[in-house]
Amino acid sequence: MSSEVQQQLVSYLNDAHAMEMQSIEVLEKAVEIAGDIQLAQLYRGHLNDTRDHERYVKQRLEDLGESPSTLKNLAGKAGAMGLGLLAQAMPDTPAKLAGVAFAYENFEVAAYEMLRKVAEIAEDQDTVSMCDRILPSEKQAAAVIEENLDLAVQRSLEETAGIPGPGAGEDSGAHA
Amino acid sequence: MSSEVQQQLVSYLNDAHAMEMQSIEVLEKAVEIAGDIQLAQLYRGHLNDTRDHERYVKQRLEDLGESPSTLKNLAGKAGAMGLGLLAQAMPDTPAKLAGVAFAYENFEVAAYEMLRKVAEIAEDQDTVSMCDRILPSEKQAAAVIEENLDLAVQRSLEETAGIPGPGAGEDSGAHA
Repeated sequence: MSSEVQQQLVSYLNDAHAMEMQSIEVLEKAVEIAGDIQLAQLYRGHLNDTRDHERYVKQRLEDLGESPSTLKNLAGKAGAMGLGLLAQAMPDTPAKLAGVAFAYENFEVAAYEMLRKVAEIAEDQDTVSMCDRILPSEKQAAAVIEENLDLAVQRSLEETAGIPGPGAGEDSGAHA
Repeated sequence: MSSEVQQQLVSYLNDAHAMEMQSIEVLEKAVEIAGDIQLAQLYRGHLNDTRDHERYVKQRLEDLGESPSTLKNLAGKAGAMGLGLLAQAMPDTPAKLAGVAFAYENFEVAAYEMLRKVAEIAEDQDTVSMCDRILPSEKQAAAVIEENLDLAVQRSLEETAGIPGPGAGEDSGAHA
């Protein structure tokens, strides 16, 4: 492969690594402020997967003779991806948290679909396989968060307005 | 409905309005820096829909006797949603732009699903109907962006590394 494509592949892998590091930070806070046992379990489960993803991406960088970005560079990298200030600006209700988490999981889906395309062009089958391993997990996380949006709303209404929900969590499917 | 639920409904509507105002800003910049005619058309098409959504939400607030947040309050409101700095930190390549746009559309999907739930609890059928009108458009926008992620990667590789793509846009479906 050309050295330009190789450089771009490493750049996408570095971005993916920064994204996973930030995801770990967001999910750790999400577990604390989930507002509901079921929501906390959901975030905790995906936090474990996210730690695996971070290791896979780091390993891939090392296999290519690169070292992942240092922590010092991480903030800038994550910022460059446009969602970088998420971790600092954590939402204040279970509902807003769920909305942001859903958006972030989808951001990760897009990032791995694009990394996969670059890896294809670079003819790096190992990175393609890694993306195929990680993508279903990110899509699953997004789907489970979406199924729990109604529950998150219910908990938020209880917290902010003292409104007890009529069987919160029973009918928490997507609407449209 | 109780005044607490009513207050929460207005708060969610205000957040949705701030979100649409920010979405207009993001999409206007996205059209300029799309990096490809097809991508620019995609953003422009959804910009038109987004202007409609903003009007629907504003109208709903006015029907409830509220005025939408002033511009002065918008930054704070959008910031509170956790994706507020998106507009200032616009991505620098067609690929990163597409990734952020995809995440933002999904954020809007989650926001309207949650607004719909609050409206259901508040027994506000007009707001439920509005969400049912807007949600398919947001989901469609997210789906079309996802279909074009490969094209966005191709254009980014051309811009940043001078790598011409083998039939860019031909095989731009989702992978997993």
